[in-house]
Amino acid sequence: MGQAGLNMSRRIRRTPFTDRVEAHGVRGFSVVNHMLLPKAFEADVEDDYLHLRQHVQIWDVSVQRQVQIIGPDAARLVQIMTPRDLRGAETGQCLYVPLIDQNAGMLNDPVLLKLAEDRFWLSIADSDILLWARGLAIGMGLDVVVDEPDVSPLAIQGPKAQALMTQLFGDGIAALGHFRFGIFDVLGTRQLIARSGYSKQGGYEIYLQDSALGSALWDLIWDAGTAYNIRPGCPNLIERIEGGLMSYGNEFTRENNPLECGFGPLCHLGDAIDYIGKTALRELAATGPQRMLRGIKFGDGPSPPCGEPFPVTTGPASSSGGQSSAGRDEIVGQITSGIYSPRLGCNVGMSMIEKTHWEFGTRLFVHTPDGKTHNGTVEPFPF
Amino acid sequence: MGQAGLNMSRRIRRTPFTDRVEAHGVRGFSVVNHMLLPKAFEADVEDDYLHLRQHVQIWDVSVQRQVQIIGPDAARLVQIMTPRDLRGAETGQCLYVPLIDQNAGMLNDPVLLKLAEDRFWLSIADSDILLWARGLAIGMGLDVVVDEPDVSPLAIQGPKAQALMTQLFGDGIAALGHFRFGIFDVLGTRQLIARSGYSKQGGYEIYLQDSALGSALWDLIWDAGTAYNIRPGCPNLIERIEGGLMSYGNEFTRENNPLECGFGPLCHLGDAIDYIGKTALRELAATGPQRMLRGIKFGDGPSPPCGEPFPVTTGPASSSGGQSSAGRDEIVGQITSGIYSPRLGCNVGMSMIEKTHWEFGTRLFVHTPDGKTHNGTVEPFPF
Repeated sequence: MGQAGLNMSRRIRRTPFTDRVEAHGVRGFSVVNHMLLPKAFEADVEDDYLHLRQHVQIWDVSVQRQVQIIGPDAARLVQIMTPRDLRGAETGQCLYVPLIDQNAGMLNDPVLLKLAEDRFWLSIADSDILLWARGLAIGMGLDVVVDEPDVSPLAIQGPKAQALMTQLFGDGIAALGHFRFGIFDVLGTRQLIARSGYSKQGGYEIYLQDSALGSALWDLIWDAGTAYNIRPGCPNLIERIEGGLMSYGNEFTRENNPLECGFGPLCHLGDAIDYIGKTALRELAATGPQRMLRGIKFGDGPSPPCGEPFPVTTGPASSSGGQSSAGRDEIVGQITSGIYSPRLGCNVGMSMIEKTHWEFGTRLFVHTPDGKTHNGTVEPFPF
Repeated sequence: MGQAGLNMSRRIRRTPFTDRVEAHGVRGFSVVNHMLLPKAFEADVEDDYLHLRQHVQIWDVSVQRQVQIIGPDAARLVQIMTPRDLRGAETGQCLYVPLIDQNAGMLNDPVLLKLAEDRFWLSIADSDILLWARGLAIGMGLDVVVDEPDVSPLAIQGPKAQALMTQLFGDGIAALGHFRFGIFDVLGTRQLIARSGYSKQGGYEIYLQDSALGSALWDLIWDAGTAYNIRPGCPNLIERIEGGLMSYGNEFTRENNPLECGFGPLCHLGDAIDYIGKTALRELAATGPQRMLRGIKFGDGPSPPCGEPFPVTTGPASSSGGQSSAGRDEIVGQITSGIYSPRLGCNVGMSMIEKTHWEFGTRLFVHTPDGKTHNGTVEPFPF
């Protein structure tokens, strides 16, 4: 099923922007970090995709909660949570950091913001890293405070984002390097703005540090944005998959290690730093990954929504059907995010693919829940 | 808004019973522990409530994920996570255990199942206790394994549950004490069945330990259940509130301590056991709680769904409106779960209430999102 009713309650938290999002006629939500993430407005996903590539959109991504780590041992705790070598990290920098457990299983893939030598934010995907960080800090007796501050990111994405944001917040916006942040005057307050976002169209994220300003900030951007053809939006599935942007819980889980996810280049395996899971990760690296995240192109017309994974097999027989005269073909992957790309004229998806079949160009078969079997090929991403 | 579309993806996990739940025409889901919880079928919530009090229902509560803690230090880790004294806990017992952090803030309120001296399950509400427990274990260097086994609870609730379950699984079912579990023959496998559930109508939870058996187990119970007028259901909001069953994330969060939640009798404040947050909890106990979870009866006709909290004030003026000649009345609470009770002929809700107004019988005012103000009174629960 593509959609079903979502029952609301306090447990599934509203954001500082939910009032505005509802006023714009939001048609669907997802739940991330116990909070609402808008998933659809009036336009369909293709129309949204085309608009995002041409204009500018405003996205409520408050679900990217911040796990704040402050104190004398803050840098130590952050390093111990990730295989990425953070010794060269600079204040004002954003860094994509895989977080792993003792088995080198992926726990999250946040963006780390270094606010000071002793103050960090982890801008997290969907798992309670607050509890992980607190548990480690208490267990290790570290001198840190780990909390969730009142910070709600609002993303301004698309090719016109820079012009809009510069008009509102000054030339410092245009001067920001990719994955760098600065502090800007916003509604009479000082706010952190980063050049970042969950799209490949360019843009910014305003880490609003006062929920009470949510509607005022939205209106400020919306009013100035009308000249740029602004629309309310959300991470766009077509654009995200084409751009090779992964989603924790979809493309990978605790069952996957960072090497499989393609994060090998981010993993320090030497002796210079220490982190949880290093022993396990070194062993995995010595053997080499047994599967890798790959792009898959499949089919030539729109497929059903990927509400549950699509099996990927070596032959045309579906694993679950088993009715084919060819018998049960081997399952070598499962598409965890997939959608029709109007630009490419086929479906694009992402899947962990077993080593035996991960070479680019390998021909495979994809089974969608409408009972159809599609020809597919293994491809690099971004598509 | 009461309902909006929920976008499905692998990240929001299906359960072993989701196929059956969909076949029964589920109309809505919530998301708990990154997994689907059915929230509505064909009957409305009142009809469901009446049925639950008379017959038997089958509930997919797989979202009650198990955090399994095994090993020589398992008992130590479990004790360190809760202020409840577990020294007398017996194998085969279920125990309701508040979990708190270093500030005595509530992290979860699972049911603990003691499977052996060195093996426990925490059947959790909506937060990633797996990460908390793992972080503590690694940080403290404990000799335990913390994982999430393939266990999916299926609840059979209602006054006819015992007859149905006894018919299927034998007289041992009827012999089970409340909050006790046993191991039973189910579909040729050995499965854990507890006399427990998230209702006050009596019933059982089958902790199914093999996802592949989900549909077979559902069908087994459904087929035998037709003679008992079985229906698919889910935790019923009317019955839950009337019964005083709380919901983590709704009635309390990390911002609340166990004393405020009424868990004082479960908290050991002496020297016999040690746990995280004991110092903070002792300080809070010395001062005494400043607010307490209370029942509220309000209004005389159905109110809108409690998708966001209803402010509770000392006078009739709404805090947000501020237009009343009486000025801004003081906010002394917020109803976090509330619904019309057909049995009581009024709305029933739960709210933390400030000490100044927590006496039973205190008259207060409740503001619902339809702009109405209702007379309310502070009541004990269960109602």
